[in-house]
Amino acid sequence: MYQTFPYPSVRDFARSVFEAHGYAPADAADIADVILLADLYGIESHGVQRLMRYHKAIAVTKTARVGAEPEIVFETPVSAVMDGRDAIGQLVGIRAMRLAIAKAKASGIGMVAVRASNHYGIAGYYTRMAVEEDLLGVSMTNSEPILVPTFARKAMIGSNPIALGMPADPTPFLFDAATCVVPRGKLEVYAKRGAPLPEGWAIDETGAICTDPGRVIAAILDRRGGGILPLGGAGETFSGHKGYGFGLICDLFTAGFSGGPFSNHKKDDPKKANTSHFFMAMDYGLFGGKAETRARFSRFLQELRETPRAEGCPRVWIHGEKELEGETRRRSEGIPMNEKTIAELRSIAADLNLPAL
Amino acid sequence: MYQTFPYPSVRDFARSVFEAHGYAPADAADIADVILLADLYGIESHGVQRLMRYHKAIAVTKTARVGAEPEIVFETPVSAVMDGRDAIGQLVGIRAMRLAIAKAKASGIGMVAVRASNHYGIAGYYTRMAVEEDLLGVSMTNSEPILVPTFARKAMIGSNPIALGMPADPTPFLFDAATCVVPRGKLEVYAKRGAPLPEGWAIDETGAICTDPGRVIAAILDRRGGGILPLGGAGETFSGHKGYGFGLICDLFTAGFSGGPFSNHKKDDPKKANTSHFFMAMDYGLFGGKAETRARFSRFLQELRETPRAEGCPRVWIHGEKELEGETRRRSEGIPMNEKTIAELRSIAADLNLPAL
Repeated sequence: MYQTFPYPSVRDFARSVFEAHGYAPADAADIADVILLADLYGIESHGVQRLMRYHKAIAVTKTARVGAEPEIVFETPVSAVMDGRDAIGQLVGIRAMRLAIAKAKASGIGMVAVRASNHYGIAGYYTRMAVEEDLLGVSMTNSEPILVPTFARKAMIGSNPIALGMPADPTPFLFDAATCVVPRGKLEVYAKRGAPLPEGWAIDETGAICTDPGRVIAAILDRRGGGILPLGGAGETFSGHKGYGFGLICDLFTAGFSGGPFSNHKKDDPKKANTSHFFMAMDYGLFGGKAETRARFSRFLQELRETPRAEGCPRVWIHGEKELEGETRRRSEGIPMNEKTIAELRSIAADLNLPAL
Repeated sequence: MYQTFPYPSVRDFARSVFEAHGYAPADAADIADVILLADLYGIESHGVQRLMRYHKAIAVTKTARVGAEPEIVFETPVSAVMDGRDAIGQLVGIRAMRLAIAKAKASGIGMVAVRASNHYGIAGYYTRMAVEEDLLGVSMTNSEPILVPTFARKAMIGSNPIALGMPADPTPFLFDAATCVVPRGKLEVYAKRGAPLPEGWAIDETGAICTDPGRVIAAILDRRGGGILPLGGAGETFSGHKGYGFGLICDLFTAGFSGGPFSNHKKDDPKKANTSHFFMAMDYGLFGGKAETRARFSRFLQELRETPRAEGCPRVWIHGEKELEGETRRRSEGIPMNEKTIAELRSIAADLNLPAL
């Protein structure tokens, strides 16, 4: 059962939660903004549905430290390494992307690798910050191991999304893709429904294709093996080794360049989230006139939209279009929330003596 | 039927072909080196099997101009746009990556977008140039349209490989992946064998999954529609939209930043190959001590190699390992060539009055 709430109420509630935890109003607004964009896009798994996890990370496990100040520990005119000091991922991510944007404006390109952060929400939030400054943006994060390398039977790499945004008209290109075939949240949805997984999403602890979502999730949690396949699926027939490679590249740029632990060692210290990110902002004027590049790229996107459709298919989309259209709709029509999430938000409000949503 | 030839004989024959076409010995050696690395890696489709196409591109269609001098048309300390002036792709690619490497050594990072080039061989040749200078390397190229966007029925994007190389021990990480599920050469192999394609590689002109390789190839050549699916396959169930997005990103960096035509317009002028490339070299010292980063990344790769294997699977590979091991073997044992290729090399030798291989 879903119930719809006006966007401003949900946003203000999320802000009040972080303010109650001691964040300054501007910081609470930034954190809420990242979380709410997922809901506006229709990516429920990364929206307020996660508020309980952030609440616990702050108040119970204390992996996210209120008041922590991320620190730049290495810097050049085009790059930096930031230690997140275990601050909440959204604040670290926004600071790091702002630094990348400042460097891009001064030097053409800015790259910031981050360690000791927390879950930062949707990767695509940060690329959009760059796009709003008329820059190309890249954002990646590692995460707890979920992706099984080709021919292996144990998860070693995170869902490891790679996001890239590029300005275009009438809407920007906003690509944001986990490098495993589907995110873990999809398995949880199938488990709740009691539905079998499509063959080719996940494997069990022996390395065999498994369509039982409960079995896969349990095997991962018990660290018995099993996990989600890389983009391209099992083995090499449909080029699963390519998805495995993109996931590995994400770990190189995030953990490799920041000095944080790779996905398979993220949980070595249970007191820390130890998440690593990577951000890049690039002035595409590094390759000549921006207006012309933007116009040419926009024309290409329009030609893709107008490609003849396969029989029975409604539309050829550009990456980000579905999300931006959903955002416009949900800003006016409201955000649908499931019962469980609503109950969790009530429980958070009670914990913090806040008025319920 | 395959026959094996010593590596130095094949290399010297290839050099002699380009010298006979009027290339200086150093340039002929560079071109041959790119082509032969594909054979050494075991990527037959991009090796001397293509010599006939290069021979015709120089002598018959004249899309590759001997003596053409690539020109830098825009430049900053960290970037450049190069007009290939229709020179053969291998020479353009090597010059552009050398420029990217020089910029990386001076400024930390160098990016070069290239237009008006030709087929440049394997994308991974150029990333290896960067890796040999202890830099991270990226190489991409667009190509004739073969990849069908998600929910479309017509090829609009090239095979659009993305290659990334990063130094590591004992062997570097050398990722090189077409963003469509398989390269066109694989369809041709199945057509020759009369074998059906795996379901999920290609679609026909209506947009339906098609296992008849001859039908798909004919539909593409007649521009009736059809083509190869993106990495992730048809529709969104296995995230084919992600492979489509990576292919689109490749066209942005190559054609978008160089000013060359996007894949779907590459053939508008039949007198030009109009291929666009993108190269990047980056000093990973931009993120602190190189020795430590390299050692940490190498350790991660070793942990991946040692991951427990799925039942019935022989080994967990790191990207590039198969190719590097094949290179070592073929350098000493020779290069296997099929009858058709041997006959083509004889015919080229006769055309140019060269001693046969």
